[in-house]
Amino acid sequence: MSIETVSETKCFGGNQGVYKHDSEATGTPMTFQVFVPEHREGEKLPVLWWLSGLTCTHENAMIKCHYHEACAEHGIILVGPDTSPRGPDLEGNEVPDDEAYDFGQGAGFYVNATQEPWSKHFHMRSYVEEELPALVAENFPVDMERQGISGHSMGGHGALTVSLRNSGRFRSTSAFSPIVSPMNCPWGEKALSNYIGEDRADWREYDACALIEDGARIDHLLVEQGRADNFLDEQLKTWLLEDAVREAGMNAAISMQEGYDHSYFFVSTFIAEHIKWHAERLKA
Amino acid sequence: MSIETVSETKCFGGNQGVYKHDSEATGTPMTFQVFVPEHREGEKLPVLWWLSGLTCTHENAMIKCHYHEACAEHGIILVGPDTSPRGPDLEGNEVPDDEAYDFGQGAGFYVNATQEPWSKHFHMRSYVEEELPALVAENFPVDMERQGISGHSMGGHGALTVSLRNSGRFRSTSAFSPIVSPMNCPWGEKALSNYIGEDRADWREYDACALIEDGARIDHLLVEQGRADNFLDEQLKTWLLEDAVREAGMNAAISMQEGYDHSYFFVSTFIAEHIKWHAERLKA
Repeated sequence: MSIETVSETKCFGGNQGVYKHDSEATGTPMTFQVFVPEHREGEKLPVLWWLSGLTCTHENAMIKCHYHEACAEHGIILVGPDTSPRGPDLEGNEVPDDEAYDFGQGAGFYVNATQEPWSKHFHMRSYVEEELPALVAENFPVDMERQGISGHSMGGHGALTVSLRNSGRFRSTSAFSPIVSPMNCPWGEKALSNYIGEDRADWREYDACALIEDGARIDHLLVEQGRADNFLDEQLKTWLLEDAVREAGMNAAISMQEGYDHSYFFVSTFIAEHIKWHAERLKA
Repeated sequence: MSIETVSETKCFGGNQGVYKHDSEATGTPMTFQVFVPEHREGEKLPVLWWLSGLTCTHENAMIKCHYHEACAEHGIILVGPDTSPRGPDLEGNEVPDDEAYDFGQGAGFYVNATQEPWSKHFHMRSYVEEELPALVAENFPVDMERQGISGHSMGGHGALTVSLRNSGRFRSTSAFSPIVSPMNCPWGEKALSNYIGEDRADWREYDACALIEDGARIDHLLVEQGRADNFLDEQLKTWLLEDAVREAGMNAAISMQEGYDHSYFFVSTFIAEHIKWHAERLKA
């Protein structure tokens, strides 16, 4: 598997790179970003996966999230994929200009679509669970025994569900403003019914709360949610996750932050704390 | 003078606001951003002016610069104006879509244009030196006795020249990747000949090196420049400022940083150090 370097820029002593490759999972070119802190020759570093939210590409987090300083301080590589396959002529992209912000391009929901026409390209689950990790392991100085995962909004849903389905792979899991139960909100219902079909039993593997109900567990979980987030009541519904972890007896820290909204201004305020929390578990 | 609130967002415990007003200096609506850290009721805080570079609006720095944490830590208000008047029907805007990135909209160069058609609206010098400070003093909890100024690229030129022309107003002046001598680079020659006319004697008040040669001084100056900046040799020419301050016997710290380019990835790496340096002078 070969990758093409789009750009590499020095930041906090490390390298913020953007790379492109032909994905087998999606059948399209895919772009992703990797920040590699300064490190000793031959050293392998822990890796933190960052999954982004609706409308984002690989680029939003690398500009807005402000993870560089903390990743440099703690010696953690951060990898951020795009949020969907893309292309103006993408087969299965019924709206070429992708007018919907919450479905299709920029809104892959980290699922493997089973429904036509999406089933041809929209395989973001395989992409982030299998193809990208293998590619990153081959091309960057990562220690795959020390992985953490995080993300924002739809990417918080991604981080939770990828971690819950892959027990033991991630030493630490966190999320900002996650969609905690796509089965129970308009964004999720639109995405899952179109990508996965009408049988709601098939949706459960893409719903953090349902996965926990069905027995999946995360050992170390940290969630940050702003109380002034205007998607909280209708889409994010943090309390459903609070209920699920309580009923499961699962150890989780879910912090509600007064006055913060859904933006990266919120994420950037708390990202250094999250990275420190991941570092404590990844470097223990 | 009244201002309209475009948005206010909590960030690092403070408020990142975007505001709009009808400017007398430019004769157009102008947008600017202000970050106000958490502070005691009635407390007035030092203010740091941030001037942005070519193509930027008020928005680039607030997303990419990562000043919030350091401003919150040190209790400093940061204000960032737009880089030019704007408008699709802007009189004097010969190219409606403003195809040139280095002239016209997004490239006001912090001058008062004297040449038609620019002389009607392009009065960014008056805007940043007079109108905006008065507006900010009236509407935000700033202590105008404690002002610092900084900026990036064209905005670094702005910070240097505004400070040099207003002796004693700023307790601290810094710049990232500044255009140190517009009289001696293609960006500057294009801007000054069109905005100010062909008489190069008139350009000297808009050229940091010429201002220093002509006797202007800055007491506390800090400059950061990346050695891998691809504009360094042709446009920025940091050595001209090094020569000017040496000949003037002026105290200045000019740091050349190995491997860093012209981007906000460079600025964000060193912004906390600069804000700490400003804070030491603004709070002394």
